Amino acid sequence: MSYKANIPVRFRDLDKLGHVNNAVYATYLGEASSQYYDAVVGGTSAHQETPLVHLEIDYRCPIEGTDEVEVRVSVTDLGNTSITMEYEIYTEATLAATGRTVQVLFDSESESTVSVPDRWHESITRFEDADLK
Amino acid sequence: MSYKANIPVRFRDLDKLGHVNNAVYATYLGEASSQYYDAVVGGTSAHQETPLVHLEIDYRCPIEGTDEVEVRVSVTDLGNTSITMEYEIYTEATLAATGRTVQVLFDSESESTVSVPDRWHESITRFEDADLK
Amino acid sequence: MSYKANIPVRFRDLDKLGHVNNAVYATYLGEASSQYYDAVVGGTSAHQETPLVHLEIDYRCPIEGTDEVEVRVSVTDLGNTSITMEYEIYTEATLAATGRTVQVLFDSESESTVSVPDRWHESITRFEDADLK
Amino acid sequence: MSYKANIPVRFRDLDKLGHVNNAVYATYLGEASSQYYDAVVGGTSAHQETPLVHLEIDYRCPIEGTDEVEVRVSVTDLGNTSITMEYEIYTEATLAATGRTVQVLFDSESESTVSVPDRWHESITRFEDADLK
Repeated sequence: MSYKANIPVRFRDLDKLGHVNNAVYATYLGEASSQYYDAVVGGTSAHQETPLVHLEIDYRCPIEGTDEVEVRVSVTDLGNTSITMEYEIYTEATLAATGRTVQVLFDSESESTVSVPDRWHESITRFEDADLK
Repeated sequence: MSYKANIPVRFRDLDKLGHVNNAVYATYLGEASSQYYDAVVGGTSAHQETPLVHLEIDYRCPIEGTDEVEVRVSVTDLGNTSITMEYEIYTEATLAATGRTVQVLFDSESESTVSVPDRWHESITRFEDADLK
Repeated sequence: MSYKANIPVRFRDLDKLGHVNNAVYATYLGEASSQYYDAVVGGTSAHQETPLVHLEIDYRCPIEGTDEVEVRVSVTDLGNTSITMEYEIYTEATLAATGRTVQVLFDSESESTVSVPDRWHESITRFEDADLK
Repeated sequence: MSYKANIPVRFRDLDKLGHVNNAVYATYLGEASSQYYDAVVGGTSAHQETPLVHLEIDYRCPIEGTDEVEVRVSVTDLGNTSITMEYEIYTEATLAATGRTVQVLFDSESESTVSVPDRWHESITRFEDADLK
């Protein structure tokens, strides 16, 4: 199952060609990822951060105008210490880009990378398996 | 006397019309203000912040292309608790915009607004008066 | 009467202190202004632009977190060739900032500033007077 | 041989943790790529664009503070219709991130993807081989 985040495109997101700037796609992925954590695991706690270790984006066609994009995000690999998410960015019915991120879980109190909590494993697995029922 | 900050324009700064986006001017003023503090009072200390309470910008002509802008900044009013700066943004020889900001000095340890230190008064006055000699 | 624009705050909007960055307020005003034109005069046409000639913002308290802000915008002065808008930015029930912009109407075909159309005068006047009834 | 682009970090580039925001790395790569084209092939012409089809970034350690980063960029694969660049982003002596982009060459007059010109092949090959001498 994928979580769907609707993100309004801002005029400021557009570049000289009237297309959403390449770097802004990474911001859209970040917003979608953050909404996923809020919706599926109840958000991160105050001292939990989820820094990116890897980002990749394949651009298929430009996003024009300033309506909104829909970002579909799924966790596709859930390790002991890392979380892989895959993304599809739609503008209306068109798949404009796909993306993939790998994040780790960092505890700012202990200042170290920590294991993904069991509770997250359960919630994420339950969410991702929900359409198999 | 005014401090001169040279700021490279990024492709990301441009909007759909190929002009530097209005909001980005505020970023340029912030960079120039920060460089002024570094150059004239030796920078702010770790727990000193200089939040804006007022910003205004008059736009005269668009900034095109991605070379660099020169921002000239002066302190034009120095109160007990506030610092007023005025700015001119040049693109090549053209005055593209003027601006004015009012900042206060905030101490993040005491979580309160504090007086502008005597040392700042001296350094700023000395700098601003330097071309009168 | 004022138009209300709800704008989701992005993580990317926050600065080092966890507050919405000063320059981003200008982006919020731009989004609200653009939504006002869409709602009240049916949007600008392809060759009509509304460049800013003046922007000012008074910052009252920081905007924290990443929920959304509500921007209330009204046209407070409507001249032959310029449109003045005033703004209030709310975060929950708190007035975080006020702003004012002056825009002109530019025709990219004739490459010149043009008069505000009668139709805009009528629509804007009707909208702004609506709460007086 | 790699081209070196020095890019000043702006306060606006930092996120809530005081680190350069993930998406901003993509802006740095874009600036470095654009400088490479200027330096090595004499820039793109007015109707030539170099849209990204693929972007990837591996984040090694955060970039803190607001000095500048050095981006080293090389063309590592030069096809008939695509250009692959690889990047290293240094903050002082530390390799903070690596990246890779694939761009195509788009002609906005014919509105189609075009072959990489022979002249670009020659200039890029000469530049990249320069340290083998």
